[in-house]
Amino acid sequence: MAQPASLAEVWRGPFQESHHVGHAVICDGTGQIVDAWGDATAVVLPRSSSKMIQALPLLASGAADGRGLTSEQLALACASHQGAPIHVTRVNRWLADLGLGDGALCCGPQVSRDTELKLEMIRAQDPPCRVHNNCSGKHAGFLTLAQHLGAGPDYVTPDHPVQRACLDAFETVTGETSPGFGIDGCSAPNFATSMHGMARAMAWFATAGQRSDTMSSAAARLVAAMHTHPELVAGEGRACTRLMRVAKEPVALKTGAEGYFIAILPNRGLGIAVKAADGATRAAECAIAALLVRLDVLDPAHPEVKAFLNPLVHNWDGLVTGEIKPAPGLLA
Amino acid sequence: MAQPASLAEVWRGPFQESHHVGHAVICDGTGQIVDAWGDATAVVLPRSSSKMIQALPLLASGAADGRGLTSEQLALACASHQGAPIHVTRVNRWLADLGLGDGALCCGPQVSRDTELKLEMIRAQDPPCRVHNNCSGKHAGFLTLAQHLGAGPDYVTPDHPVQRACLDAFETVTGETSPGFGIDGCSAPNFATSMHGMARAMAWFATAGQRSDTMSSAAARLVAAMHTHPELVAGEGRACTRLMRVAKEPVALKTGAEGYFIAILPNRGLGIAVKAADGATRAAECAIAALLVRLDVLDPAHPEVKAFLNPLVHNWDGLVTGEIKPAPGLLA
Repeated sequence: MAQPASLAEVWRGPFQESHHVGHAVICDGTGQIVDAWGDATAVVLPRSSSKMIQALPLLASGAADGRGLTSEQLALACASHQGAPIHVTRVNRWLADLGLGDGALCCGPQVSRDTELKLEMIRAQDPPCRVHNNCSGKHAGFLTLAQHLGAGPDYVTPDHPVQRACLDAFETVTGETSPGFGIDGCSAPNFATSMHGMARAMAWFATAGQRSDTMSSAAARLVAAMHTHPELVAGEGRACTRLMRVAKEPVALKTGAEGYFIAILPNRGLGIAVKAADGATRAAECAIAALLVRLDVLDPAHPEVKAFLNPLVHNWDGLVTGEIKPAPGLLA
Repeated sequence: MAQPASLAEVWRGPFQESHHVGHAVICDGTGQIVDAWGDATAVVLPRSSSKMIQALPLLASGAADGRGLTSEQLALACASHQGAPIHVTRVNRWLADLGLGDGALCCGPQVSRDTELKLEMIRAQDPPCRVHNNCSGKHAGFLTLAQHLGAGPDYVTPDHPVQRACLDAFETVTGETSPGFGIDGCSAPNFATSMHGMARAMAWFATAGQRSDTMSSAAARLVAAMHTHPELVAGEGRACTRLMRVAKEPVALKTGAEGYFIAILPNRGLGIAVKAADGATRAAECAIAALLVRLDVLDPAHPEVKAFLNPLVHNWDGLVTGEIKPAPGLLA
């Protein structure tokens, strides 16, 4: 088992103050590793980076088309959105279309990460709703599939037909038998796989447009929905949204809690998985930006790229006190 | 140079999801290493863990006694407080005693981390003040020393007499020439030293009561102020406050940004320095709790200790989804 590799350095003045290590794998459409850092065999929970996999049964089952879901809704099914009005209004409308309300969501309430809405709700003394949870779009998708299958409302229990379909899809696209699951921040099972398995899955998504089977067609539509609606996948200010917007070609990017990040590159037929071993978001963002610069998908001179590839660290008084840099080994 | 050692594991269900490594050193009063994990020669910025060192000149110069500072004020000078009313009212009164206002602080404004006050200020549309900055007590101390020295108001510039005095004190107690500084979150210089140097400094504080020189007397008073007023050093809910309150003997504990934590153990004459290499607070809190359990300063069965030694991870719906565990090597 290889040791974790250097991913990102945190500098303060002339000192490297902190250091992030982890794993990164780039796979091609045959499932072969093109490049790897750290341990490609490390078993991980990809967390929200696997949402496009969890959305596959929604489409492949016919549930999405049966309900006439739009590409906006497909993007929301794959999203870790920040609970801004553009997200909340769409998920609320989706729930209403299903004849359901906030209480049908099993994801727990989360304070909006949209600053304006958050402050407005605090001033109005409105408690956060489940629809504000970053996973509410995924859960609206789960509910849509559950209705289509005629299954019960406890759609996050591991043996519910919705989750059994998610596990089937997960094992198909990772090419591995999942060794188990953890319970995610939104109470749904999150299936484990190796770093190689996750990168292989992302390459399978990247090459989906070259195949005509039902699952691949579903994958291609989800990838298209993600890069067509980057603001719905995350939100203003967020890495997924900002980096998808400035990429030189259509790509799907998705963060996951505890330092996960994936990239799906249809033009190259490549998939990337990144995991910061310590779970740090700042490291995963920096590393995925570096790998996308390496592949010439992102321009390192673009300010939106620099904001994640080499962000400045500011203090409470607004002074620049340091910077985050990608590990040199990722860039070239 | 030794590699970083394992400090803490983050588990989700049956999977170790994330892993924190870093450095830890325990020193005795002679400056010798009693125990070490990772690299004792690693050069680090101890950040707010060094506040009791930065407060030494305030006392040793006679400035504190000239102004009649209380032990509460000395505790605040060493604090990373959460900007709760108990902190803010005391620092405001201190500033008024100096004939100064919020604008004299060079630390930048920071939103209060006291939930009730934060929400109240948002509802009142009151912007955060500099006095709410976690470092405002340290800065009130700097201002007190600057007045005593008849020095100018730019007390955070590295060549200001206040900062020159801080550097002198820092090099004295670490027993090392500092290789330089970074600018801290509050705009003051933060001097670098090795992990060994910082642990040696904390052991010097721990044994200060056994010596009668001016600097040692100052150190003993600062340590006493910290463990006498744990709620002023951090605040309700915070690791420093909660762990000092339940320790089996008087100890001074202090966190620092980017995964730093120190302990001063006067009854043992020992000092401890911990640095999570990745900068994670959760890892530093877990590791310092583990080392204090190892030394029988904390009871691992006490719920307040368990909250940092082995905290449960909850999700948005309140379910327990995992736990953080100290690396076994720290406990025994």
